[in-house]
Amino acid sequence: MPNPTAAMLVIGDEILSGRTKDANMHHLAGKLTEHGIDLKEVRVVSDDAPAIEAAVRSLSGTYDHVFTSGGIGPTHDDITADCIARAFDDHIDIRDDARDLLAAHYARQGQDFNAARQRMARIPDRATLIENPISVAPGFTLENVHVMAGVPSVFKAMVDSVLPRLTGGAPLHSRSIRIERGEGEIAGPLGQLASQNADLSFGSYPFIQNGIFGANIVIRGTDPARIDAAAKSLSQLFSEGT
Amino acid sequence: MPNPTAAMLVIGDEILSGRTKDANMHHLAGKLTEHGIDLKEVRVVSDDAPAIEAAVRSLSGTYDHVFTSGGIGPTHDDITADCIARAFDDHIDIRDDARDLLAAHYARQGQDFNAARQRMARIPDRATLIENPISVAPGFTLENVHVMAGVPSVFKAMVDSVLPRLTGGAPLHSRSIRIERGEGEIAGPLGQLASQNADLSFGSYPFIQNGIFGANIVIRGTDPARIDAAAKSLSQLFSEGT
Repeated sequence: MPNPTAAMLVIGDEILSGRTKDANMHHLAGKLTEHGIDLKEVRVVSDDAPAIEAAVRSLSGTYDHVFTSGGIGPTHDDITADCIARAFDDHIDIRDDARDLLAAHYARQGQDFNAARQRMARIPDRATLIENPISVAPGFTLENVHVMAGVPSVFKAMVDSVLPRLTGGAPLHSRSIRIERGEGEIAGPLGQLASQNADLSFGSYPFIQNGIFGANIVIRGTDPARIDAAAKSLSQLFSEGT
Repeated sequence: MPNPTAAMLVIGDEILSGRTKDANMHHLAGKLTEHGIDLKEVRVVSDDAPAIEAAVRSLSGTYDHVFTSGGIGPTHDDITADCIARAFDDHIDIRDDARDLLAAHYARQGQDFNAARQRMARIPDRATLIENPISVAPGFTLENVHVMAGVPSVFKAMVDSVLPRLTGGAPLHSRSIRIERGEGEIAGPLGQLASQNADLSFGSYPFIQNGIFGANIVIRGTDPARIDAAAKSLSQLFSEGT
């Protein structure tokens, strides 16, 4: 059976303006690979309701899971929860379970549970909460969309909360072989090896380092023995002079 | 007149598997902001022809410019050029101008200009070449799509080759103000300030650092004086205790 598929939707002007480097994509990609879920696409959109809704609808219809990051805080530019509710025609308001969690948290901290903070308890009716052990304000899962925070430490914690709930497939294994030849020399023999091993995927990732042209060849598949055999063949093809 | 809009399409399994951290998105985002072109969306797709073609068609129809990175080398998984040609119903083959550039380069280096390397001269008929001062193999512009390499040093050089050709709008200015209060305290006054300054955009980017909750508020706009005035108002709102 093929692995479940997934997309990620990163929401935030700060990535698109170049102010902030996204860190969550790389983290999620690694976690999904370990879990046997194939990340097929990532989109980054701005804090713009029509853009968010259109992306959620499109990705949710195409892939088994959609993971979002960003836009669920208390400020005026945090519009993700409302957009997700609209994308699925669900009603959204401050929900008792989320409000209780947050009210208890701010009471413990001796802080005012004001209107802005209550916004973080806006959860669609049909959603299931995602636990946030860092700063309490929950994420949520609605249908096949998992809505998480953009702050990297909170995003990571929420991924850890939600992944054990999801059925994964066979984890993908990989081996990387560094070859210090130009890709132009590697390409021919590599193409042949790839066509002889259709159950594996062969990626060639070129680098230029201290004036040396080379490539990291990554062999991926679900059967480690098959990967090892292909890696051995590849090393033999380029053994002389490396 | 509003600024021209743009999207970026990152092509490569290595990003989606978590093996590699994308570096080109952050670089392009900063360069476009300087140049007065608004980056509105980024998509990352795998080395899969239907996925690449569908993304190119969709983004090219929606935005003024599309910038792609990755998949234009000599190996079997480098399929971007052919996908772009198909997306625009253009004919593609080894083109004389690109082949001459590459043939001269490999002759200078005393290296074989073999079949794999000749693949890098596959350029759609109607495309304009993008210069590559690092490793010669050119990128190209076809209609409103600018096709560039994935290797970060080459990507950067190609961005520098292509951007001066494009008409930008008013560069976007920004100021960032760090406020060491929870977003829940910032949100109310910030929302009011944002509604009083509709010509500016106010982003709130929360952080948790050494147990301190705070947010960087970024004010963006095309008029630096208006930004300074708003920054002053914001600082006054939170002056006590910061």
